[in-house]
Amino acid sequence: MALSEFRPLDEKLLVEYIKATPSLASKLGDKFDDLKIKEVGDGNLNFVYVVVNASGSFVIKQALALKEHGQLCPEHVPEVYHFDRTMSVIGMRYLEPPHIILRKGLVAGIEYPLLAEHMSEYMSKTLFFTSLLYLSTTEHKRSVAEFCGNVELCRHTARVVFSDPYKISQYNHWTSPYLDHDAEAIREDNMLKVEVAELKSKFCERSQALIHGDLHTASVMVTPNSTQVIDPEFAFYGPMGFDVGAFIGNLILAFFAQDGHANQGNDRKAYKEWILNTIEETWNLFYKKFIGLWDEHKDGPGEAYLPAIYNNPELQKLIQVKFMEDLFHDTLGFGAAKMIRRIIGVAHVEDFESIKDASKRADCERRALEFAKMLLKERRKFQAINQIVSAIKQHQS
Amino acid sequence: MALSEFRPLDEKLLVEYIKATPSLASKLGDKFDDLKIKEVGDGNLNFVYVVVNASGSFVIKQALALKEHGQLCPEHVPEVYHFDRTMSVIGMRYLEPPHIILRKGLVAGIEYPLLAEHMSEYMSKTLFFTSLLYLSTTEHKRSVAEFCGNVELCRHTARVVFSDPYKISQYNHWTSPYLDHDAEAIREDNMLKVEVAELKSKFCERSQALIHGDLHTASVMVTPNSTQVIDPEFAFYGPMGFDVGAFIGNLILAFFAQDGHANQGNDRKAYKEWILNTIEETWNLFYKKFIGLWDEHKDGPGEAYLPAIYNNPELQKLIQVKFMEDLFHDTLGFGAAKMIRRIIGVAHVEDFESIKDASKRADCERRALEFAKMLLKERRKFQAINQIVSAIKQHQS
Repeated sequence: MALSEFRPLDEKLLVEYIKATPSLASKLGDKFDDLKIKEVGDGNLNFVYVVVNASGSFVIKQALALKEHGQLCPEHVPEVYHFDRTMSVIGMRYLEPPHIILRKGLVAGIEYPLLAEHMSEYMSKTLFFTSLLYLSTTEHKRSVAEFCGNVELCRHTARVVFSDPYKISQYNHWTSPYLDHDAEAIREDNMLKVEVAELKSKFCERSQALIHGDLHTASVMVTPNSTQVIDPEFAFYGPMGFDVGAFIGNLILAFFAQDGHANQGNDRKAYKEWILNTIEETWNLFYKKFIGLWDEHKDGPGEAYLPAIYNNPELQKLIQVKFMEDLFHDTLGFGAAKMIRRIIGVAHVEDFESIKDASKRADCERRALEFAKMLLKERRKFQAINQIVSAIKQHQS
Repeated sequence: MALSEFRPLDEKLLVEYIKATPSLASKLGDKFDDLKIKEVGDGNLNFVYVVVNASGSFVIKQALALKEHGQLCPEHVPEVYHFDRTMSVIGMRYLEPPHIILRKGLVAGIEYPLLAEHMSEYMSKTLFFTSLLYLSTTEHKRSVAEFCGNVELCRHTARVVFSDPYKISQYNHWTSPYLDHDAEAIREDNMLKVEVAELKSKFCERSQALIHGDLHTASVMVTPNSTQVIDPEFAFYGPMGFDVGAFIGNLILAFFAQDGHANQGNDRKAYKEWILNTIEETWNLFYKKFIGLWDEHKDGPGEAYLPAIYNNPELQKLIQVKFMEDLFHDTLGFGAAKMIRRIIGVAHVEDFESIKDASKRADCERRALEFAKMLLKERRKFQAINQIVSAIKQHQS
């Protein structure tokens, strides 16, 4: 089916589209009489349809980044059966059981020994290969333009992460009355607001790499052996630290929630250690893999640091250390902002929400909030991830 | 003439286009037999045609930003007679004598008492109104996408400003042999290269405002009463400091060139003072006007700092001071990079080129180069423009 321009997919168009696309039609045994189509998307810019008949099933999405990231890191992105660039339509693998949402695993106290390895692989590849460290200026700008269309989802993110928690908003909520003063304190913290404005401007203005844009622990599906990153509907060109920070920030939330899940059968102490190790490993492995890709491709097409200029090992080391230090501070800042918004903003996380006792939940949330506030304001003082782990431990009671 | 999509204009299409556009056809007395069309563009992404017949004349350009900036600051941008968004075609005013290129006026030692006033007006309006201080996230991203098409010119700028001067390049030249060692020293200055990489990444990645992109003193036409900014072909969403820095950096080049133009009849001392005053006034007026626009529109559509969050005078002051300090340091960094590239890069400036005596020229250039190197590396230590003026004076001999 040759559509010469992008059109939002409705059900009628979708059926036409499937009929005309052999790779999809064949999955349904080329029968369309008993077709059941269910729209399960967010009603926003991106469409998600589950298509089922007696012969088979698949998922259809309109989301550009899935294809792009899948090519860069096929091990950790669901396989795409069919992709149509003009329409941005994707037919993709259905992630079969026992895959579960990572956040649910973290609430249940399940260890995933390969998580740090896999996520650092995914983040280093998707971020490195879509940045100016690997792309020419021309390719980079072309790609930036392509993803500018995702403006409504970007705007939504900017509002819920960087604005709502810092003002009175009908959408905000928190464990009340316990956190009433905490929420108020945030709305009155000038230094915090100055810092969050800097992050917001970076989020809106800095086209550093094609980021996933919503990389929290419910955007990852896992088994002990498999880690699959899903839902890149928010993808756009933004700061790398927004992705790394989202993932690490949500692991820190999971950490602070553990005391609320502890019971006589399981004090969760060992599991808290595992989370801290995973945080430390995620950053350290990310650092190592990212620098590895940089070294490997330093004579490649990337135009950020031309080899003719950055032409000696000492200088190469200097720029890498500086780059990673900036990225580390961005990661901490965005991670902290993501934590705050999950406690006093519109959308909360199951890590805390599943703690039934409100008073106990508020205690966990307050510790996380205090840590996040400190991190947002003091992030530039940290030089290594083990210092972050120490600071988390200091805030745990 | 209803063209439904953008097409590069060739001469044949241009004639059709003029015939079908009353506001242009009427300027030629609706006669097309004796039409003379001359292509005077840069042969790049943007087209410039001079169209003449017995009845009249005009200039036709394909350049999006002229219209955009003209609406924001009509006093200092040539009037546009006709604009076609789909085609980006512009029919505009021909800037009649006695308008001359500002750079030529600076070489001739002519004072323009209104220059700082006018340029600060132009820069504050074009930069403020195209930034997130005035635009919603949606409008901003839409506009960013629109100007991503200008990728080839951006790439060209990135190369000539941030790359070529710092490596061996067949395009580089300088006043040889006098500056051979100076050029070599720049290629071996690790700290300078680290700083210039940071600026390059900001130039390529930060969509802060719709900048002119080439705002040196030959992109401005002047009379004692009129200041007109021309040639916005390089316009794209970039860092504000790139524009302010280009203008101020080129004024500093003009300053360091004056000793080469001094003769028995005119020692240029008073003129050097006028340039320094103009530099100081340009920044101070820009600062004042920019903050004025910000205060005036702080409850407007801009989404960078929502009034519900930045809701007290102390906090408002805090974010403005921080914003302007960052912009000041960007301005100094980009200004310095622009100076360096005009002395040892591919394209030089008439300010120095018109100094016939090579040894004398090299002396002037070396002082400018030493100042620019210091400024690029130490820019964060400066807090106010009068400190810059003092530093310029210290480098003048």
